[in-house]
Amino acid sequence: MNILITAGGTSEAIDQVRAITNHATGALGLALIEQFQQSAVTIDYVTTATALKPKKQENLNIHLVSDTQSVEQCLQKLLTTKKYTAVIHTMAISDFAFQAALPIEALLSKLNLRLATNQQNFSMEELLELLADEQVDANKKIASNTEQLILTLNKTPKIIQKIKDWQPTTCLFGFKLLANVSKEELLSVAKESLKKNRADYVIANDLANINGQKHLAYLLNHKGEILQQADSKAKIAEMIYHQWQKEVAKHE
Amino acid sequence: MNILITAGGTSEAIDQVRAITNHATGALGLALIEQFQQSAVTIDYVTTATALKPKKQENLNIHLVSDTQSVEQCLQKLLTTKKYTAVIHTMAISDFAFQAALPIEALLSKLNLRLATNQQNFSMEELLELLADEQVDANKKIASNTEQLILTLNKTPKIIQKIKDWQPTTCLFGFKLLANVSKEELLSVAKESLKKNRADYVIANDLANINGQKHLAYLLNHKGEILQQADSKAKIAEMIYHQWQKEVAKHE
Repeated sequence: MNILITAGGTSEAIDQVRAITNHATGALGLALIEQFQQSAVTIDYVTTATALKPKKQENLNIHLVSDTQSVEQCLQKLLTTKKYTAVIHTMAISDFAFQAALPIEALLSKLNLRLATNQQNFSMEELLELLADEQVDANKKIASNTEQLILTLNKTPKIIQKIKDWQPTTCLFGFKLLANVSKEELLSVAKESLKKNRADYVIANDLANINGQKHLAYLLNHKGEILQQADSKAKIAEMIYHQWQKEVAKHE
Repeated sequence: MNILITAGGTSEAIDQVRAITNHATGALGLALIEQFQQSAVTIDYVTTATALKPKKQENLNIHLVSDTQSVEQCLQKLLTTKKYTAVIHTMAISDFAFQAALPIEALLSKLNLRLATNQQNFSMEELLELLADEQVDANKKIASNTEQLILTLNKTPKIIQKIKDWQPTTCLFGFKLLANVSKEELLSVAKESLKKNRADYVIANDLANINGQKHLAYLLNHKGEILQQADSKAKIAEMIYHQWQKEVAKHE
């Protein structure tokens, strides 16, 4: 039996030396590996260069990714070539990727140049044009001789929403992480994500309740019902493992 | 005798889960430690949580920093309380810190609202006001329900320019890293940085010539003359070490 686990946080390059990164230690991924190795499963582990790495061991394949695009390519390849009893998608993936950088002085002068000839409303296309960097060069560092730099970021594709396209029969455990919201809001947003992502389960958690190994999380089924809660990374891993065992038993 | 070495790359928070980071492994810092431990020196080593760490050892104090502000506080404290024969500043420090994030739809509507009542040129203040995020809340994640997100970044203070204010008598080794420029441009920019930073030496290097331990770099003195070049991190460390020995001998 195969399990696919993703862990760590992606990084989107701004230029050759800077990136927008998502914090994620990968510690939950390690806890999951420990749990699942109680069973005779093979684990495909998709993670990043800076995340904590599991020790090399039998039945564990590590796949290194960096940005959103590389995650998508890796997951698509794995999910369309190999059958997984579950996908446990803990990885924190960038919502936005770098598009353009513009010194504020350039933006101001482009804006006022347009106003000099045309005082009408801007369209979205015109605004995007205004924000575009004319000196885009992926091989250079962005200029640093300005007081303010204006970055335009583009939304990245939601990879979790493609998992069931690639493998409709797998059991998908999604994660929803919010920051400093009420329990009601957390559960409501997590329920929405179940539908959008066609997930079988979602683990809902809030940054305010995560501190090292302490980690409060709720496990919701596809109906949005809370099945269980856990208060540490080890217990979250255990909770997911037991739910996966029930899923496997269903199909035996 | 004391030596102050900085290594790794800083990280500027966008929100609780995202940051703008500067790539830097910290490998050059480790090579420097190895070199300098040939002498009876005490090393203060300022680095980040994600950089490579030296093993704990005698006469080595590790100081962890995260963003530009924390580097400034740490260096100011060390340099105003302890005498260093040299400061070797390899750390990659963010040029910009996060100021505001705005969905492009909000920017478009604020822009057109202004045009509806006033078609005159924008001032810099008005443009900054337009780009400001109205929902700034350091405890929340930035919104992700927009196709484009517009970030405003503020220039950070140049810490290297303060080192000689804090300790005029130290010998400062600065670094200038560019990407894919000619040797002439690299040396010219490095020379400029010598003056601006009041550095005694600058190590000029180009990302295009860095790959793992392979690392081409030029050592320039305060007049901008090339004293030596090196082609690996170990040899860069050696080159700096020998120059430091000459400096120490001068004052004996």
